[in-house]
Amino acid sequence: MKQIESIKESGGYLNRYEHESSSCHCKMTFSVYLPPRATTGKVPALYWLSGLTCTDDNARTKAGMQRYAAEHGIALIFPDTSPRGDDVPDEVDRYDLGQGAGFYVNATRSPWNKQFHMYDYVTQELPELLEANLPILANVRAISGHSMGGHGALICALKNPDSYRSVSAFSPICHPTESAWGKGCFTAYLGDDIQTWQEYDATELVRNGAKVKDILIEQGGADEFYDEGQLLPEDFQAACDSNGQALTLRVQDGYDHSYHFIATYVGEHIAYHAAALKA
Amino acid sequence: MKQIESIKESGGYLNRYEHESSSCHCKMTFSVYLPPRATTGKVPALYWLSGLTCTDDNARTKAGMQRYAAEHGIALIFPDTSPRGDDVPDEVDRYDLGQGAGFYVNATRSPWNKQFHMYDYVTQELPELLEANLPILANVRAISGHSMGGHGALICALKNPDSYRSVSAFSPICHPTESAWGKGCFTAYLGDDIQTWQEYDATELVRNGAKVKDILIEQGGADEFYDEGQLLPEDFQAACDSNGQALTLRVQDGYDHSYHFIATYVGEHIAYHAAALKA
Repeated sequence: MKQIESIKESGGYLNRYEHESSSCHCKMTFSVYLPPRATTGKVPALYWLSGLTCTDDNARTKAGMQRYAAEHGIALIFPDTSPRGDDVPDEVDRYDLGQGAGFYVNATRSPWNKQFHMYDYVTQELPELLEANLPILANVRAISGHSMGGHGALICALKNPDSYRSVSAFSPICHPTESAWGKGCFTAYLGDDIQTWQEYDATELVRNGAKVKDILIEQGGADEFYDEGQLLPEDFQAACDSNGQALTLRVQDGYDHSYHFIATYVGEHIAYHAAALKA
Repeated sequence: MKQIESIKESGGYLNRYEHESSSCHCKMTFSVYLPPRATTGKVPALYWLSGLTCTDDNARTKAGMQRYAAEHGIALIFPDTSPRGDDVPDEVDRYDLGQGAGFYVNATRSPWNKQFHMYDYVTQELPELLEANLPILANVRAISGHSMGGHGALICALKNPDSYRSVSAFSPICHPTESAWGKGCFTAYLGDDIQTWQEYDATELVRNGAKVKDILIEQGGADEFYDEGQLLPEDFQAACDSNGQALTLRVQDGYDHSYHFIATYVGEHIAYHAAALKA
């Protein structure tokens, strides 16, 4: 991995790196915020998965997370949202399929199946790379994200309950099998057999017995995509209730789907993760 | 004025408005953050002037100011950085002249002199409009800004010491008469007579006897534009020292010119202004 940028913020450093990804078979870019505490020892890490259209830059620029990470002494990891580049397939007229829309799955259908392996990338390749090369503690990970990235955080944790100390999400796509965004990407990346989708659907995973210690979800009450039925937190709540999965779902009156909502509550989420990471 | 957007953040509302500006003779867009306290009474206001290339959106999205404004109960005002639109002159190949680069002066030279009256706009028209139409206290104003906007904040306060309770700046263009950015804009907007530039130059204003109670400046020690000689805080410091102007100039080791620097220290600046606004 090669460092291509370093910006000081809140006493630590917001760095950007490039590397050749073995999972995605292309050059990938990601950002890491290293808090001041990382200069004197290894720190735990919170992985943040972003939503449709984002790169590694959006959350680090708009969410205001770095000050809290500095305070709690945890690193923030911002992966990209898909493989990217001229040699990577895309649907240029669509924001919700192809580049910028990896959906954190391992694609099995052509032309996506060569490179769209974001699930392996964020759960295995990237943590191993970072823990080998940066002052980041091995296997002391938490995960969160927004919208498509909230879906990603939920499935990564539910499928790997021993890999993450804690999981939270903002406005996650909770039941992609039943949402237009999810159906579009799952059909393209995984094919028509809905059985194969269940492996990457948080609601279906819980229905099928996946379990983690606790889940925190923040949802805006005036979120336009919630109203459209893209997010379906009520389906996830029902699955959790039926299967004894602990869930704190907070619907916050008047908030929309934007980073202004994330910025409002991300401090509480980072404190939640920091407590688990240091337990 | 017409409200065109409203986003909930930190319990308050980040609103965007359009109006026909009498100073700038075009439609202008600006944003206002109203803290929760504004629902039950009028609140003081901090004006934030942004830098080259910005609109009203940059600071509200990237600086992370809203949470502090909510906490202290003060409104944030984000004007645009110039007149804008198809009927407004521009230098489309330049980022540092024309639209996005109003420099907070009243232009006297054609073709800029019809609409580039940002000084009148931010010191008179906008405050009067807001204090008449929003829950904002009359004449309880503070001002800050970044780079070109830091220059703007300094000159607005120095030229109107009774209009602002406090002034601060991040990485301001302290001596535009001696900086490439300043020379370019002042020549275009004000003409070749350098005497006329002194009215809009913080260092020259202090040299000529302007005075405010106190000034707080935050400067990144690794700021690329500081190294280029665009900002010249040392000239301003010398002028303040010679003329008995109180100044706290803090050079912060390792920080650049970006919003990541602002985000690091803006909480301290808002606390500084809040203390003055409530005194």
